[in-house]
Amino acid sequence: MDEIDFEGWTCPVPIRPTDTVILGHGSGGTLSRDLLNRLFLPELGKAAPRALDDSAVVTMDGQRYAVTTDSHVVSPLFFPGGDIGRLAICGTVNDLAMVGAIPIALTCGFVLEEGLSFELLQRVVRSMEEAAREAGVFIAAGDTKVVQRGGADQIFINTSGIGKIAEGINISGANAKEGDVVIVSGTIGDHGIAVMSAREDLGFETRLESDVAPLNHLVAEMISAGEVRVLRDPTRGGLATSLVEISEQSNVTIEIMEPSLPVKPTVSAACEMLGFDPFYVANEGKLVAFIKENDADKVLEAMKKTKYGGDAAMIGRVIGTGRPQVRLKTAIGGTRLLDMLPGEMLPRIC
Amino acid sequence: MDEIDFEGWTCPVPIRPTDTVILGHGSGGTLSRDLLNRLFLPELGKAAPRALDDSAVVTMDGQRYAVTTDSHVVSPLFFPGGDIGRLAICGTVNDLAMVGAIPIALTCGFVLEEGLSFELLQRVVRSMEEAAREAGVFIAAGDTKVVQRGGADQIFINTSGIGKIAEGINISGANAKEGDVVIVSGTIGDHGIAVMSAREDLGFETRLESDVAPLNHLVAEMISAGEVRVLRDPTRGGLATSLVEISEQSNVTIEIMEPSLPVKPTVSAACEMLGFDPFYVANEGKLVAFIKENDADKVLEAMKKTKYGGDAAMIGRVIGTGRPQVRLKTAIGGTRLLDMLPGEMLPRIC
Repeated sequence: MDEIDFEGWTCPVPIRPTDTVILGHGSGGTLSRDLLNRLFLPELGKAAPRALDDSAVVTMDGQRYAVTTDSHVVSPLFFPGGDIGRLAICGTVNDLAMVGAIPIALTCGFVLEEGLSFELLQRVVRSMEEAAREAGVFIAAGDTKVVQRGGADQIFINTSGIGKIAEGINISGANAKEGDVVIVSGTIGDHGIAVMSAREDLGFETRLESDVAPLNHLVAEMISAGEVRVLRDPTRGGLATSLVEISEQSNVTIEIMEPSLPVKPTVSAACEMLGFDPFYVANEGKLVAFIKENDADKVLEAMKKTKYGGDAAMIGRVIGTGRPQVRLKTAIGGTRLLDMLPGEMLPRIC
Repeated sequence: MDEIDFEGWTCPVPIRPTDTVILGHGSGGTLSRDLLNRLFLPELGKAAPRALDDSAVVTMDGQRYAVTTDSHVVSPLFFPGGDIGRLAICGTVNDLAMVGAIPIALTCGFVLEEGLSFELLQRVVRSMEEAAREAGVFIAAGDTKVVQRGGADQIFINTSGIGKIAEGINISGANAKEGDVVIVSGTIGDHGIAVMSAREDLGFETRLESDVAPLNHLVAEMISAGEVRVLRDPTRGGLATSLVEISEQSNVTIEIMEPSLPVKPTVSAACEMLGFDPFYVANEGKLVAFIKENDADKVLEAMKKTKYGGDAAMIGRVIGTGRPQVRLKTAIGGTRLLDMLPGEMLPRIC
């Protein structure tokens, strides 16, 4: 036996206070899932059929539509490469694209803090317009609430969206199959580290920019090029959390080759300095895809020709079924198991 | 000439600071409209085709759907007759119903403050489940963000929704016609005064309960009974603001008979004490309808048989076109013009 069998191993998780909400409940990792499984889903019962993908699929008049929602609370509001407005549009466009839907309409709900400057709000809204234009979606409805000073932190934006899923498209976290090739669309960790660098209290400086971008056009190219089985945008919780979710939904073992993973040197350096792992840092303009083995080359080629897929790379493969695991082959030949983000690494990252 | 001609009269409005957001920008009245017309719509441009109704109508594959969004920031979270959870579901269900859509799916986006008790969150979510069950809608997708202590006030909930508009249904604020009968579905001002009474710092006590309720079943009965041309739920800004909006959208003069207006004695008393006008106080389980003259009796009769329409009453009529005005005939025979709520009367009412 030349490999350790990790089955059944467990890792200690941080103590989880059960009586109050902590920042980690918004992390997108284990605690978020806990809150969903232990509170939201049991209480909502039949009112909320369980859905694990980035968007829920709703069939109306025989046509499948994707619907999704995201609240955005990023701090600071402006960071290198983006702002809360661009984030709000792209986040929802991407959630729709991750089930193969063509985004049609968005709604925007603003919660504003009394005293916010019009100039700042204007910059945010202008940025939303630009992102919406780039993605080719329109904003069908909006709502604005204002709370007193100190009742909210400047601006929160909820963006919900609906998109159409074309006939024959069937993309879900549950569709990974043995042999599938795992592709990421570019370097990971850029968004999280860019936002970190903008938080003045950390005094951390880097020229890195957030990757926040709408991925719907990239997804369209991928779908034209080959059979796409799984798509996910690794936002909160990072790539590791997305891969673990997919391994569980599809009940497969995924092997990732660490040296294949595109990571910018500045991101690596920042992570080392701050004690972060790029695998768990949020992205806002990247996707991870599981592609049918024979189509992987064609899809990768198509991705590389697009605006946001230039650094796309094959990073791994589905090596088995029946055992939900994500194995990371390290540069020096070791293997470690990836887990979901247990708590909170970077609060208010999106 | 036995009546004063109000045309061309203008009322002084409060000074509007243009450099920062104030509470009144979330009031649903004049300042809200200002923010929309002076900032959101110009900045969003083609990304946001103008829509004045409670829901936007989006046509997909030849079928019309209503989409809407609302963020809920009510304070306190629990008040007589309801809570933020029930409010969040009903608010969105009602916005869909106001264009005659049958609500299908909702999305819920939570922003939680660190330190919030699970017990409280559980009560809110349970209340959402009950309201969703009553309305017959399901929650297709959700999202939870957590901000640090002091970054938000306990819980904000965004609810977006989609509903289907059946063939032949054409309900819009722009459809009022001369002769139409104006009906309200029950007593006005209950919600606003109930929330006020729950704000401890006012030390105001009354046994009044909020009217927060899903109105989709009521609307279905109305549509079956006769031709419904306009529907609106007079939430923020109250009945007066809704009527002014409709008069402008339809370019008609509306005459309201003040003595016909159903107002609970406790609401009247509270308004008198606090210096409020029930006409401008928020409702969350009431609607105002414009019905084709010949169908008004049948529709009113149908409303009275429903759970939330027992106190429905005819309160006025469209008396002319070409001059957007709302005239209020008072009990002592006078006439006054109603205007939109200019600023903010009751912040964080929904």
